Amino acid sequence: MKFDLVVVGGGPAGSITALTAKSVYPGKSVCILKDIGDGVIPCAIPYMINTMSDPSQNMVGNKPFENAGIEIVVDKATALNTATNKLTMLSGRELEYERLVLATGSKAFLPPLEGIRQPGVFIITKSLSALTALRERTKSAKNIVILGGGFIGAEFADELSKTHSANVHIVEMMPKLLHLAFDDEFCDAITQELIKCGVQVHTGRRAVSIQGENRVKAVVLDDGTSLPADIVIVGVGGKPNSELAEKAGLMITKKGSIWVNSYMRTSDKNVFAVGDCALKRDFFTREEVPVWLASTATAEARIAGTNIFGIRVLRQIHGTVSAFSTKMGDVCFASTGMTCRTCEMEGFRIITGDATAPDRHPGTLPGALPMKIKLVFADRSGTLLGGQISGGPSVGELINALSIGIQMKLNVRELEMMQIATHPLLSAAPTVHPLINAAHNALAKLRAGRD
Amino acid sequence: MKFDLVVVGGGPAGSITALTAKSVYPGKSVCILKDIGDGVIPCAIPYMINTMSDPSQNMVGNKPFENAGIEIVVDKATALNTATNKLTMLSGRELEYERLVLATGSKAFLPPLEGIRQPGVFIITKSLSALTALRERTKSAKNIVILGGGFIGAEFADELSKTHSANVHIVEMMPKLLHLAFDDEFCDAITQELIKCGVQVHTGRRAVSIQGENRVKAVVLDDGTSLPADIVIVGVGGKPNSELAEKAGLMITKKGSIWVNSYMRTSDKNVFAVGDCALKRDFFTREEVPVWLASTATAEARIAGTNIFGIRVLRQIHGTVSAFSTKMGDVCFASTGMTCRTCEMEGFRIITGDATAPDRHPGTLPGALPMKIKLVFADRSGTLLGGQISGGPSVGELINALSIGIQMKLNVRELEMMQIATHPLLSAAPTVHPLINAAHNALAKLRAGRD
Repeated sequence: MKFDLVVVGGGPAGSITALTAKSVYPGKSVCILKDIGDGVIPCAIPYMINTMSDPSQNMVGNKPFENAGIEIVVDKATALNTATNKLTMLSGRELEYERLVLATGSKAFLPPLEGIRQPGVFIITKSLSALTALRERTKSAKNIVILGGGFIGAEFADELSKTHSANVHIVEMMPKLLHLAFDDEFCDAITQELIKCGVQVHTGRRAVSIQGENRVKAVVLDDGTSLPADIVIVGVGGKPNSELAEKAGLMITKKGSIWVNSYMRTSDKNVFAVGDCALKRDFFTREEVPVWLASTATAEARIAGTNIFGIRVLRQIHGTVSAFSTKMGDVCFASTGMTCRTCEMEGFRIITGDATAPDRHPGTLPGALPMKIKLVFADRSGTLLGGQISGGPSVGELINALSIGIQMKLNVRELEMMQIATHPLLSAAPTVHPLINAAHNALAKLRAGRD
Repeated sequence: MKFDLVVVGGGPAGSITALTAKSVYPGKSVCILKDIGDGVIPCAIPYMINTMSDPSQNMVGNKPFENAGIEIVVDKATALNTATNKLTMLSGRELEYERLVLATGSKAFLPPLEGIRQPGVFIITKSLSALTALRERTKSAKNIVILGGGFIGAEFADELSKTHSANVHIVEMMPKLLHLAFDDEFCDAITQELIKCGVQVHTGRRAVSIQGENRVKAVVLDDGTSLPADIVIVGVGGKPNSELAEKAGLMITKKGSIWVNSYMRTSDKNVFAVGDCALKRDFFTREEVPVWLASTATAEARIAGTNIFGIRVLRQIHGTVSAFSTKMGDVCFASTGMTCRTCEMEGFRIITGDATAPDRHPGTLPGALPMKIKLVFADRSGTLLGGQISGGPSVGELINALSIGIQMKLNVRELEMMQIATHPLLSAAPTVHPLINAAHNALAKLRAGRD
């Protein structure tokens, strides 16, 4: 088989690369090679346990590809020859390409823990059948231990607490849950929400072994605590799937990602890489960062899809802004750009601004929830570096106002003067909107520092 | 009495000017002069009828001013002498200022209609007592006619339809409701929502008289239709309250607003004006536009408050972007910047992009609603000119991502590559988010036009 463009991987990065390329270059033949036939939407995996009435609702369909005239091949690439432009597959077949995109994703990291390879331990994969099995198993579980307090772990804890049928424990090595995405006050609020939902949170603790014989029985922590467990869910991070690229001699970063330039091109000029398997640079520091998000992957995919048959200088990735959102209990949390914690680690001089207001106005309106915003700006210049928000569901899109602001190099003085839309039933009042007032608060500090 | 700064008007514009000035210049004495003792939050007026359990919830409190050390004087300014820097008040007292800010707002326009001055006709004011009287009266009304299909009229219609006790009619001269803020397809969706709520919509129709003897009985339209009415609510627009400024010899625009420069300074160097009474220029055309929004007023107020004792060049208003949001029935609508309609009126060459997706992912998740985005870009350059959105409550903040984008001169190529946060429970999928896909759609058209 031969195609103008072959995309390896059917996740968000691969799918959007193929669709973008087909839209920009309609005359080219495009194929997606994927090795999981029953792949699911990765971000929604935790919600397959309870929120969805049927886990198959989370299947990725092939309709958009059929409509676009993109071929799907279900097989696994085992070797890549960049001299002959050919992929060899598990079935023995070969795929020839003019351009190749590697969107091979990441795989869950398996901690070297005694007892981790026994029935009842679930490593999160993107396969419908494996996740359906986990869902079934959680129904009868009395005790569930989650290892890892990042987004996946915390979202599983929140989701599992909704079933009310099991004791749910979450274990995180770092001093706080979601330590990489938020500053302490937001991490603490997230922990409080989970505790309100009945989750038992163990931070600053490491699992040392998983006990059991033929079935999981307990997880032992580094302080000797033994947490009873019928199920252990492991969500402690991942690593890039870069073996195929590495064996083919493509340049690999020291953290194991496939090296790419700003146009998502690898060290071979006919091969691009996007998504979790490709090098992520931080938007501000330009250093390699292990932040894997579908929203970043799809931005990269649009860049690769556009540049694949001819570089367009304006379409380059400027680094990952790490824009996240999530929901714990009834409260939504979101973060974009740098936190105080990451600024301190990287040596950025900063000024912050905070503000809180009800998310409807007047705040006595039914359904009003408190909204809290923290903004991080570069000291002196006042450039927006990051923002964190908690509140009602509108947080999920308000974070994108900040995310766009960061990518447009918004300044604190500009933000304070921004005209925004407000409505009694949909937002805080224009007089006290936390987006503006947090900028005002930061400016007051900048002013005080100068007097 | 003498103050360093006197602000005339206690609405959003006056309040925020006073608070900003006091924050930037803490050593200066600041006074707010207001003529309504029981003023309410203007944007929330329609929701005082039914949504609020008690209309007094919408009162503007004096607490923030007391806390900031700002004096409140309840009286009415009757004359301004810019030579002596003095205001004369209805009580006969005088107020001397070093700097003056006019935030006198607008007043509802009273159409020259036979029978308009009779009991049962309500002109919307910002007084708690008047609005409480209207609320009481609506409880027993069987037939209510609203004149004016802009935001106020449409929001009153939506709110009154929730009481289920009256027939509600809305009458608008223009061919569509909310004709100034949205293009036809969004206007039509708004109309459909109101019809679903039981509202009877009469567009392209003008009221010619209000019938009744001592009490309103009916509204007669220009096609002869007679709509029975116990109450008539008039919301057909307003005009700037600029008499005080005009009598004092300040420059007034041909549409009756107080002329101001980019720093909100009037033709007298010690007098500034902000909010509905002050000249509004369009962000793109720089022409005078009759768009009165609390969110624009508060942006102007922050600019005036900062510049009042010394112009800061970076803090200037760049014109009104007209960012609105509202809710009709269960659907939220928002608009910012220019529509196709306003672009056509002004002769802008444009390209548009549309996209629709469920606002959760997968779209089968409980609570998911369709989200629709239309974006307007300048042809060739691709600069973002405007956006319209319909969908669930997150529309209320997503419009601000576009509003900030417009104010930062975001380009369609940049928007298509933006990294945004997404979450299954809070937003559309990253692969199909309408914010990105509408940009993609517009780019595809730009590309096709060039081939």
